[in-house]
Amino acid sequence: MARIVMKFGGTSVADLDRIRNVASRVQAEVAAGHEVAVVVSAMSGVTNQLVAWCGSLSPLHDAREYDAVVATGEQVTSGLLAIALQTLGVPSRSWTGWQAGISTDGAHGKARIAGVDGAALLASMAKGQVPVVAGFQGLGPEGRVTTLGRGGSDTSAVALAAALRADRCDIYTDVDGVYTTDPRITARARKLDKIAYEEMLELASVGAKVLQTRSVELAMKERVRVQVLSSFADVPGTLVVDEDEIVEQAMVSGIAYSRDEAKITLRHVPDRPGVAAAIFGPLSDAQVNVDMIVQNVAADGTTDLTFTVSRTDLPRTQSVLAEHKVAIGSETVLTDPDVAKISVVGVGMRSHAGVARIMFATLAGKGINIQVISTSEIKVSVLIAAEYTELAVRALHTAYGLDAA
Amino acid sequence: MARIVMKFGGTSVADLDRIRNVASRVQAEVAAGHEVAVVVSAMSGVTNQLVAWCGSLSPLHDAREYDAVVATGEQVTSGLLAIALQTLGVPSRSWTGWQAGISTDGAHGKARIAGVDGAALLASMAKGQVPVVAGFQGLGPEGRVTTLGRGGSDTSAVALAAALRADRCDIYTDVDGVYTTDPRITARARKLDKIAYEEMLELASVGAKVLQTRSVELAMKERVRVQVLSSFADVPGTLVVDEDEIVEQAMVSGIAYSRDEAKITLRHVPDRPGVAAAIFGPLSDAQVNVDMIVQNVAADGTTDLTFTVSRTDLPRTQSVLAEHKVAIGSETVLTDPDVAKISVVGVGMRSHAGVARIMFATLAGKGINIQVISTSEIKVSVLIAAEYTELAVRALHTAYGLDAA
Repeated sequence: MARIVMKFGGTSVADLDRIRNVASRVQAEVAAGHEVAVVVSAMSGVTNQLVAWCGSLSPLHDAREYDAVVATGEQVTSGLLAIALQTLGVPSRSWTGWQAGISTDGAHGKARIAGVDGAALLASMAKGQVPVVAGFQGLGPEGRVTTLGRGGSDTSAVALAAALRADRCDIYTDVDGVYTTDPRITARARKLDKIAYEEMLELASVGAKVLQTRSVELAMKERVRVQVLSSFADVPGTLVVDEDEIVEQAMVSGIAYSRDEAKITLRHVPDRPGVAAAIFGPLSDAQVNVDMIVQNVAADGTTDLTFTVSRTDLPRTQSVLAEHKVAIGSETVLTDPDVAKISVVGVGMRSHAGVARIMFATLAGKGINIQVISTSEIKVSVLIAAEYTELAVRALHTAYGLDAA
Repeated sequence: MARIVMKFGGTSVADLDRIRNVASRVQAEVAAGHEVAVVVSAMSGVTNQLVAWCGSLSPLHDAREYDAVVATGEQVTSGLLAIALQTLGVPSRSWTGWQAGISTDGAHGKARIAGVDGAALLASMAKGQVPVVAGFQGLGPEGRVTTLGRGGSDTSAVALAAALRADRCDIYTDVDGVYTTDPRITARARKLDKIAYEEMLELASVGAKVLQTRSVELAMKERVRVQVLSSFADVPGTLVVDEDEIVEQAMVSGIAYSRDEAKITLRHVPDRPGVAAAIFGPLSDAQVNVDMIVQNVAADGTTDLTFTVSRTDLPRTQSVLAEHKVAIGSETVLTDPDVAKISVVGVGMRSHAGVARIMFATLAGKGINIQVISTSEIKVSVLIAAEYTELAVRALHTAYGLDAA
């Protein structure tokens, strides 16, 4: 007998038929002898409606009221699923975030879970009940309802799995697992049986939107085994686990891409201490997230500095740079929004030389120019012209031996 | 400066424009120097949708889950109205039932308020905030959300007004007050400036659906001055108050009617002790509410017994009577669903003789036969053939001098 937390996203509970389908899936796990707790999102569309109402009344609405309104979506689903489970003869009850002992900080609209007191849920499970917990929400320090921000229900599920010492946290979604790359780009993409937390994090942060970054971070920290699987197909998904659990580590596990990039180049920046701080300090103050940075020293005592930001931040970046033009001392600012970041990810690359070499050779072979390079322990990323995105992803997928047979 | 609880029903908050309109009304009271707390219902249609979902998943759903689902409707409105108020510059925050200190018994789906701890709301008001409380809900003894059953938001508002020692509880609805009779029956119906609790109770229980009976009972018990007024027209409404506050008491304040009646006559019931118990005991067990009862003793040692029930209870009544036929000893059961109850109501009739005489004479003058009569201290009711309903109401309205000038 295992203890499992099952989490169902908005499309999995979009209407009553799908809620009944979810109830059947939960019933099957219970029938298999497992102890189950469930976390649910709002029925898809509901949250958007509630958000739209708040925004329509006031673009700058009180985040505490936004939370009071928006948290009702998950509350509805939890009650409906409990009824559907009872109808199948599975004892069940719904729990709001505050009832389930999920406490958060006071950052309304994007709160972080501060702690989970699982005692009440454990007592309920010990009585043979399946708790159905409203995801995406908790109780703030002032006794008000908070929401966790984007992807919050995944994080609720992982936090609950940690608090309940669950053997596994199954995240049901509309894809059936994590792939070696985006199947829309190449039909040769393969579903992975297992992937390491670190890899999942890199894939998530470069645009593979299967799990929210924060939930993966939490799973890694708490060592929660997470499975991503489809609520519509009855096939095994992808396990996100500690890398020690992955016996045969491929050099590269996946190829990710992000088109949400913009490149900025500052020409002829004076090559002296403090210049980088003069540039990136104000950007940080303006909440602009700078990603890749490269700097080339020129012969004349100046330097060219190139960095990337998310494309939506480009206008803000340009105005910050203009405002601090004198302090920076650069004459020319070049911008290019038509760039994409391609990343190869794999915990195996720590022990393999030559990952970057294969990447550069493959891209050169297709005539793709590399504009910026950055590396981490388990990732090599390059910036290229956006129009080459699909070509690059497909070529790399083949080059690293990831293609499906 | 007065302290006022303002309550807005579902049609008053049906969409964002109406919520903005409600915010303006609240703002006006605040601007007039009053201290205000608000109670809201769900946006009209929302509750029906949530109820339908529960019913569709299971006709016999768990009332605790029903409450978890349905209570979200009021929570949404309270958050939205708080945002709308803030937009007008009125400091405000939303409160769910459990946050506002409203505790109930554990009768999910039709809970009764057990107590209101107004301390948190009073503290909020002392800071200049307008609390917007989700009506229709509270916290049950097991820490679960309860709903109060039909008309519950009116009761929430009155209970809150009592706990906050408010000077008045204003119930905003889609009619602009309490009338001497149904304006759809006679254009001569007049809006009453004031009406006594007892009168309001009698009018509510005989079919004038302005306020729910339970809220009026609570207002009478707690001596809360209630005003019924329109959220769409800017005119004074009707005050429901202690009869001492009504200086010039009319003999009759209003004429009510109810078509939801059915008449049952048991012929030749043995005239001996215990027969009434044999009839009405089983009906009570079957949750059938018996209203008017008359009994005529016949010469042959038997009696004819006539009583009324609500029309929807007629089939159940017939099956109960058939089941207990032997114990009752009646040979013949006659039923008539085509009857209406007409009531004249007024606290003034305690001190006036002749109210019944005017009633009987007026109906006789129109050729209307009286089938059953019942009286209370402040009410005379008669049962007549349903087809005479409007004629009777109009004639009595004129006879008691209630017609508008």
